[in-house]
Amino acid sequence: MHPIAYYQQVVADYFAQTAVTKEPKNLYDPVNYILSLGGKRIRPVLTLMTAEVFNADCRAALPAAVAVEVFHNFSLVHDDIMDDAPLRRGNQTVHEKWDTNTAILSGDAMLILAYQHFEQYEPATFRELAKLFSKTALEVCEGQQWDVDFETRNDVTEPEYLKMIEYKTAVLVGAAMKMGAIVAGTTTENANLIYDFGRYLGIAFQLQDDYLDAFGDPLTFGKQVGGDIIENKKTYLYLKALKQANAYDRERLLQWFAAQPEDPAAKVEDVKNIFTASRADAVTKEAIEEYTLKAFDTLDKMDITDDKKALLRAFGQNLMKRTV
Amino acid sequence: MHPIAYYQQVVADYFAQTAVTKEPKNLYDPVNYILSLGGKRIRPVLTLMTAEVFNADCRAALPAAVAVEVFHNFSLVHDDIMDDAPLRRGNQTVHEKWDTNTAILSGDAMLILAYQHFEQYEPATFRELAKLFSKTALEVCEGQQWDVDFETRNDVTEPEYLKMIEYKTAVLVGAAMKMGAIVAGTTTENANLIYDFGRYLGIAFQLQDDYLDAFGDPLTFGKQVGGDIIENKKTYLYLKALKQANAYDRERLLQWFAAQPEDPAAKVEDVKNIFTASRADAVTKEAIEEYTLKAFDTLDKMDITDDKKALLRAFGQNLMKRTV
Repeated sequence: MHPIAYYQQVVADYFAQTAVTKEPKNLYDPVNYILSLGGKRIRPVLTLMTAEVFNADCRAALPAAVAVEVFHNFSLVHDDIMDDAPLRRGNQTVHEKWDTNTAILSGDAMLILAYQHFEQYEPATFRELAKLFSKTALEVCEGQQWDVDFETRNDVTEPEYLKMIEYKTAVLVGAAMKMGAIVAGTTTENANLIYDFGRYLGIAFQLQDDYLDAFGDPLTFGKQVGGDIIENKKTYLYLKALKQANAYDRERLLQWFAAQPEDPAAKVEDVKNIFTASRADAVTKEAIEEYTLKAFDTLDKMDITDDKKALLRAFGQNLMKRTV
Repeated sequence: MHPIAYYQQVVADYFAQTAVTKEPKNLYDPVNYILSLGGKRIRPVLTLMTAEVFNADCRAALPAAVAVEVFHNFSLVHDDIMDDAPLRRGNQTVHEKWDTNTAILSGDAMLILAYQHFEQYEPATFRELAKLFSKTALEVCEGQQWDVDFETRNDVTEPEYLKMIEYKTAVLVGAAMKMGAIVAGTTTENANLIYDFGRYLGIAFQLQDDYLDAFGDPLTFGKQVGGDIIENKKTYLYLKALKQANAYDRERLLQWFAAQPEDPAAKVEDVKNIFTASRADAVTKEAIEEYTLKAFDTLDKMDITDDKKALLRAFGQNLMKRTV
């Protein structure tokens, strides 16, 4: 097994080699632009790592890994249009740098380009990978739609919220790992277990994102602390607080989330107090722990050596220890 | 072989059976809406018909046929956003009936749903179909991008224009037919010849669309006659007129295409006169004839019985005889 940085380099090299130099430039320049912004590349790294966990050369999983990353970036390009986001990874979003029509069409091309990477595999593997990919991609669209729907709903339940983050974020992490397992040719049982490992870890990761957005260290957290509160986002913290807060706090929370004050400092401060007083922060931490443990439970059932289990566990623990 | 109406019914029945009833409604309702608007369904009909030409049961080609039609409708949903079009097949476009974000996301889902239809086939066929589909889908995106690019360019050449309509329209017709051939398991040579047949016919069809937009019968032509002229679209007629008109007419043509008069009647009339005086109309008709004959030439090389060749030729002649 290799360190994360090694896999990241393998992915970066492959992207550099396979940059699309075809015409028309206005279609492919945005594709190369968004892919060049990098990011942590967690998903393709997980695909490569999983292939090695199941005793394959990680390079054999490279086309599948890159398909996942290209798809992820496709979803960012289209989501950024929908969210009217000006920045992505500290740079202009595609629809800002070019325009909305370009971002729509280049995004479409990326979704197709993602499928084309699977053409490196022979028919049986190709079909299995493409089938998992389509299922997952559709779930990501469904998750995005739930997220949009929730913005205008006041009756979102906890199971609905968990399903939304599972679809929008976690299934792609699970699929990224399962693809490594498919390429390695391990048993169906192992492949399904590593899918669940990734999926549970993905849910834990997203819940932690919700938590850190409110309670992260402003010095180390990458985004503006309190951003979700300012934007009235119905996160896990919010849903839990709404359920657990006393009547007075609940009313105040609803009022804060119906407004967007110009100076949000007081709002962020008070909402965080309500999160703490209602123990929404504590139960969110418990939920993160719960999903992390669910991920680790799948390891026990997996037919791999103990040192590989230890390695996957360490990766998960590391991911969950982050404060950024 | 069956009449066109039979294939149309088979496709309609399959769509009725496979309508997506899943949640979230806001994602799948627009998918079912655009597919329910129908249209002539030329592409899936061609897939079914081709499968029978190569001695397969047309129903075996149904998933591939429907994949092509779902993709075609995906491209309409996204193109209509880009063109800011209010109507499609006489009904509200998806982004008008819902909103732009819904049209982006539901379109994305349709592109994925198209791929999923191929999962009905075993691995070797699945891979061959999906590979042809990805190549074609990417070319359609490229054609759309050229079309957008040409709007702001004054130096578009005839070969560039022909390549644009080939990618934007014709390759999908070729691919629709080739998929029928792949499902039927005919020779690679036959499959490539029927692809060329469809591709050439697609180019001829689009050139005829350009011609009819200016010179079609207002009583039978489905769209507003002169629509391309009013919108300053650089069609084949326009490019030819620009090249062949005398200096005076050329100047007038450029002036008309730099303006959008409120009452366009005089513009349409004068531009049509320039098209005729420069013989742009005549050479456009010649080009339509040329590409139709190229299509028919591929039939001579095809390894099928003469009555099937006659049938494909009759279909092509019928398509090219249309005045609507």
